[in-house]
Amino acid sequence: MRIGISTGGGDCPGLNAVIRAVVRAAARFSDCEVIGIQDGLEGLIRGDGLTTLTLASVSDVLARGGTILGTTNRGNPFRYAVRTEAGVVERDVSDEVIANARAAGLDVVIFVGGDGTQDIAARLGAKGLRVIGVPKTIDNDLLATDVTFGFDTAVGVATEALDRLRTTAESHDRTMLLEVMGRHAGWIAVQAGLAGGADVIVIPEIPYNVAAIHACLEARRRSGHHFHLIVVSEGAMPDGGSVSLVAEQTAGKVARLGGAAERLLDSLMQFGEYEARVTVLGHLQRGGTPTPCDRVLGTRFGVHALELARAGASGRMVCLRGTHVTDVPIEDAVGRQRTVEPEGELVRTARAIGVCMGD
Amino acid sequence: MRIGISTGGGDCPGLNAVIRAVVRAAARFSDCEVIGIQDGLEGLIRGDGLTTLTLASVSDVLARGGTILGTTNRGNPFRYAVRTEAGVVERDVSDEVIANARAAGLDVVIFVGGDGTQDIAARLGAKGLRVIGVPKTIDNDLLATDVTFGFDTAVGVATEALDRLRTTAESHDRTMLLEVMGRHAGWIAVQAGLAGGADVIVIPEIPYNVAAIHACLEARRRSGHHFHLIVVSEGAMPDGGSVSLVAEQTAGKVARLGGAAERLLDSLMQFGEYEARVTVLGHLQRGGTPTPCDRVLGTRFGVHALELARAGASGRMVCLRGTHVTDVPIEDAVGRQRTVEPEGELVRTARAIGVCMGD
Amino acid sequence: MRIGISTGGGDCPGLNAVIRAVVRAAARFSDCEVIGIQDGLEGLIRGDGLTTLTLASVSDVLARGGTILGTTNRGNPFRYAVRTEAGVVERDVSDEVIANARAAGLDVVIFVGGDGTQDIAARLGAKGLRVIGVPKTIDNDLLATDVTFGFDTAVGVATEALDRLRTTAESHDRTMLLEVMGRHAGWIAVQAGLAGGADVIVIPEIPYNVAAIHACLEARRRSGHHFHLIVVSEGAMPDGGSVSLVAEQTAGKVARLGGAAERLLDSLMQFGEYEARVTVLGHLQRGGTPTPCDRVLGTRFGVHALELARAGASGRMVCLRGTHVTDVPIEDAVGRQRTVEPEGELVRTARAIGVCMGD
Amino acid sequence: MRIGISTGGGDCPGLNAVIRAVVRAAARFSDCEVIGIQDGLEGLIRGDGLTTLTLASVSDVLARGGTILGTTNRGNPFRYAVRTEAGVVERDVSDEVIANARAAGLDVVIFVGGDGTQDIAARLGAKGLRVIGVPKTIDNDLLATDVTFGFDTAVGVATEALDRLRTTAESHDRTMLLEVMGRHAGWIAVQAGLAGGADVIVIPEIPYNVAAIHACLEARRRSGHHFHLIVVSEGAMPDGGSVSLVAEQTAGKVARLGGAAERLLDSLMQFGEYEARVTVLGHLQRGGTPTPCDRVLGTRFGVHALELARAGASGRMVCLRGTHVTDVPIEDAVGRQRTVEPEGELVRTARAIGVCMGD
Repeated sequence: MRIGISTGGGDCPGLNAVIRAVVRAAARFSDCEVIGIQDGLEGLIRGDGLTTLTLASVSDVLARGGTILGTTNRGNPFRYAVRTEAGVVERDVSDEVIANARAAGLDVVIFVGGDGTQDIAARLGAKGLRVIGVPKTIDNDLLATDVTFGFDTAVGVATEALDRLRTTAESHDRTMLLEVMGRHAGWIAVQAGLAGGADVIVIPEIPYNVAAIHACLEARRRSGHHFHLIVVSEGAMPDGGSVSLVAEQTAGKVARLGGAAERLLDSLMQFGEYEARVTVLGHLQRGGTPTPCDRVLGTRFGVHALELARAGASGRMVCLRGTHVTDVPIEDAVGRQRTVEPEGELVRTARAIGVCMGD
Repeated sequence: MRIGISTGGGDCPGLNAVIRAVVRAAARFSDCEVIGIQDGLEGLIRGDGLTTLTLASVSDVLARGGTILGTTNRGNPFRYAVRTEAGVVERDVSDEVIANARAAGLDVVIFVGGDGTQDIAARLGAKGLRVIGVPKTIDNDLLATDVTFGFDTAVGVATEALDRLRTTAESHDRTMLLEVMGRHAGWIAVQAGLAGGADVIVIPEIPYNVAAIHACLEARRRSGHHFHLIVVSEGAMPDGGSVSLVAEQTAGKVARLGGAAERLLDSLMQFGEYEARVTVLGHLQRGGTPTPCDRVLGTRFGVHALELARAGASGRMVCLRGTHVTDVPIEDAVGRQRTVEPEGELVRTARAIGVCMGD
Repeated sequence: MRIGISTGGGDCPGLNAVIRAVVRAAARFSDCEVIGIQDGLEGLIRGDGLTTLTLASVSDVLARGGTILGTTNRGNPFRYAVRTEAGVVERDVSDEVIANARAAGLDVVIFVGGDGTQDIAARLGAKGLRVIGVPKTIDNDLLATDVTFGFDTAVGVATEALDRLRTTAESHDRTMLLEVMGRHAGWIAVQAGLAGGADVIVIPEIPYNVAAIHACLEARRRSGHHFHLIVVSEGAMPDGGSVSLVAEQTAGKVARLGGAAERLLDSLMQFGEYEARVTVLGHLQRGGTPTPCDRVLGTRFGVHALELARAGASGRMVCLRGTHVTDVPIEDAVGRQRTVEPEGELVRTARAIGVCMGD
Repeated sequence: MRIGISTGGGDCPGLNAVIRAVVRAAARFSDCEVIGIQDGLEGLIRGDGLTTLTLASVSDVLARGGTILGTTNRGNPFRYAVRTEAGVVERDVSDEVIANARAAGLDVVIFVGGDGTQDIAARLGAKGLRVIGVPKTIDNDLLATDVTFGFDTAVGVATEALDRLRTTAESHDRTMLLEVMGRHAGWIAVQAGLAGGADVIVIPEIPYNVAAIHACLEARRRSGHHFHLIVVSEGAMPDGGSVSLVAEQTAGKVARLGGAAERLLDSLMQFGEYEARVTVLGHLQRGGTPTPCDRVLGTRFGVHALELARAGASGRMVCLRGTHVTDVPIEDAVGRQRTVEPEGELVRTARAIGVCMGD
């Protein structure tokens, strides 16, 4: 049995734990071989990016961030960018992918990735390839699983940033804004905000009202607190506004991330004088050593994926429900995001301890 | 409404997050006052250890380990040690406790502690005191909640220790044993062992067989690995053995913790030559800054406890079920430990990736 | 004897260690009182921001970033901004400062701060106030001392950032640029760059040549490395260029820091296609728990400052020379920056291991 | 030119930085090859443990603890343990070592190690082998260099331990003792003790007086502090005592480290009641990721060693003096330890802020 494995989308702490677990779990079976596909599906599209993964390949990778297989945000085989004389055009190369997988003798392919990757997996599954999904998203916004690896590490980085910014805020009587990941869901902002003692947490799910935020900070000042910590999801937007979440990156040219926190600060300035500073955490949230929690979750997911592959399953995605690892149809994870409930327990907890949720 | 709060048993990262959340959540209500009881129930037994907790009291405590209220492993009011002329005798001072609580105008008392503390709370509740429980255990062995704060921090410390020991093990071709907390349950050992890439994990739930462990390490050597990482729960014991878990501490005199890893190593030595070293993590696991995860969980528990108190509940213990904070009768958490299932998913995951579970 | 102490300029990990050491060292002498001046010299200018510092005041501050006295980047008494009907005007309030210090019975004032603060101290000293300086600069660019506290912490934060960015760079075959502090001196960039294994380090002392950097990265690509780590000091500028280091902050309005890395990337883009990302570390470098090294150095500086104060010295600044704490005339530290020698051992070391220094 | 490199003695964070720097610095010269000697000198004694180190060999090792070459505490070629029919006997195999080095074409060998290793290097140098020394000692007790890599990491681990123990000490009103490395010199104890805010620091250089320590703790109690942090060097001994520093390890059998802190606590118990706990940090101090400081110092040492090797030097050891890397005769580093001066600035600083130095 030959099992392919591919990591797609943005890198994420815990990916190597998944790969390692799949390889180690397969190593118990003499008839089981794991084939690593390089750079998302590139290795399969090009056909030459396949390598056998041995125990030695995954030695010493558990504590390393990123993915030893490489990954890419491009490479959707249904809309694959090809350079032609007429310029770059998109082609559907999914048949080649499936043909290449068969030519390589792959019985099944494990797709580790976010909802984009899972969508690709589901569609390749529908065309006859045996596929297993393993969810991955730092933002924690994937449906059908309670949590994914990478999220805990990201929250850890964001919380440490808040701990650092707090001392400067206190010493200088400043307002410090921290922009964290979360285009559609405010999970990192809420968790890190609660953990780091933020005064204001602004998330995409709750459009913000600048006047309300200003009033909250004024109330803090009146009670003797002259510094403020504000956490802003990158997808935060004002109430009634229609901020388009255009990436600041133009084609072929890359700028730094961020913008939401600056927009919020600009608006705040209309209401009063703020000695304020903005920090955009950006890529620091997704790299580096995974937390123990993420290493364990990645390992559990990897073992379960291998078991599904061995059992002949297809179209299933591994997931965590409560304290148990189980699996669901891949389709359940695709198409929508799992967002923070504006009236749910987390937000109520934040409000209960006096955090302004931006509204 | 006057709400008492007490922290009992060993200290634990996240206790201050609970206290802070209770105080901040109460601050929204003008009729609500929170009274901190010093040093477990000592403050109430002596009657003079009560202080009003204000927002200022809990400023800047979120990221601090330990408990600002103080705690103690002594002070069970049903068996309270009193020095008399005839020596130390145990008395039931529970009536005084209740009387003192009433004299202090406490409408309800929140007990943050492990199963010993929850048992006391339940019994005081049965005698008429309104009580709310908040579970606390680094070992994660409390029934009725999926997880408690403090556990994630302890796993983090243990995993970092494994990461450190690994480099020495590799460089010196050594066997490194790490003894971690867990008298009755191997949660820390399993989680940290998985996160830190341990080769052998020995837990109380699975009596160990030294010959099997030796065979596992020999097999590793034959495949070219001359170093080994072994994680041992303090409550680990050999198959068929009857190791009494006597604390090494004699009355009035305190030695360092540990013993399980040394016992295991002594036994291993009978089977072969080991260049080995033992590290006992001990108190390093329970102190220091809580992880973001533990800060958030403590905050959620504190808010829910305050809501229960406000709602007039009694005899309920806050708990986490899946992703939700809810509550159960305190009695559900008392009397037994939540242990690692020897055939459960965690252990199967460990075995699947080639970890020797000691048997 | 009454000893005033003030912290000026940007906050810095280790300031509290200095304050604590001064207070604890003074506590041995019954005739010695330490008076904390709030918010730089504001407390003395306003005359009402003075508090007696006791052992309790400095309990538990050793591991905390920032300064318990508060600080400000404003407040130069020789050019003090005062709001008048005619707008904001600058006044020389140094006589008031000295008069207020005398009225408060201060025999000597310890100034903890960077070269701006030391300049103020020297000038107040010249006008008759007894002054002692303690150097402080995260950038490590102060003359007359080998190193200052805060620098080690900043290098730690920057190195951890590189460790994190590396995994993303590797996984995605990307060029990651990290902008770190250092307007006039590249100490943080060089140390963190060496510690974090950067491929290119760009510092103010060595104007950069974009073509040379591009050539270096191309050479890496040809040898099979498709990712690059570049560290850029905020004061980096192109060879022959005249980039004015205008803060992006306009009066009364504050933007996020940075710009040097983006400028460099823009220039690089002219030479080839770069899949690149910029991270600006900004305020994360100056907050948070000081490293042990910075806590110890702050403590040693504080004790020496107190000894100087007790001994009747004035106009002296504490400093580190080799492994010894000693002192020099304050004037020695003022007016110029201590910069990285372009031909010195550090830069030669970097070049020797193949780091491109931008030229 | 073929340059051998060997790491000897206990492992130490920063060794890989040295190896990497030597290899990368050599890679600039087409005529220069670096040969790694496995497991101290074992690779050379056996003659088969030599491998060419390439840029790929040292890729990704900068942030890793331990040594990729392996090391051993055995393997002194002048007293090499050989198993014979008559049992284990010690032989002088230094001639074989030199012959093997010549047979392998090594022009010079770089010895990275502590004073034992430097002594071996000096003696092999005297017999005609070209040798260069690079100092290594976590304890920081090597003569002829101001500091060595590994020390900063060890101080970091010990300080973090104190930060953790402090919260438990405070919460439980306990006395926590931490035993750290340092058989002959108290550098780690003093630096970590100062950084972690210890109340008592006991080092080998200052024999301790239990009555004085007890009196110090009693004085703390009287001023309202009911918890104490005590740092104890493993080589600490009582005044007038003659504690032989026998390793607790007997031949072929290995126990855990420690003993000094327990001995101190036992003695303290005679003077009063102590609710106390002992933690022995042991191997946690020497493993794991090196701090940025240690990575940079290792890199600088490695580059300088390669330069010495290229320049035809022999018998020189790299060292740090003030802020500069330079070199001295190897003999200068051998035979004695660099210890903490009992009347020096560090100890005076500790005393000045009220730390009891055990006497």
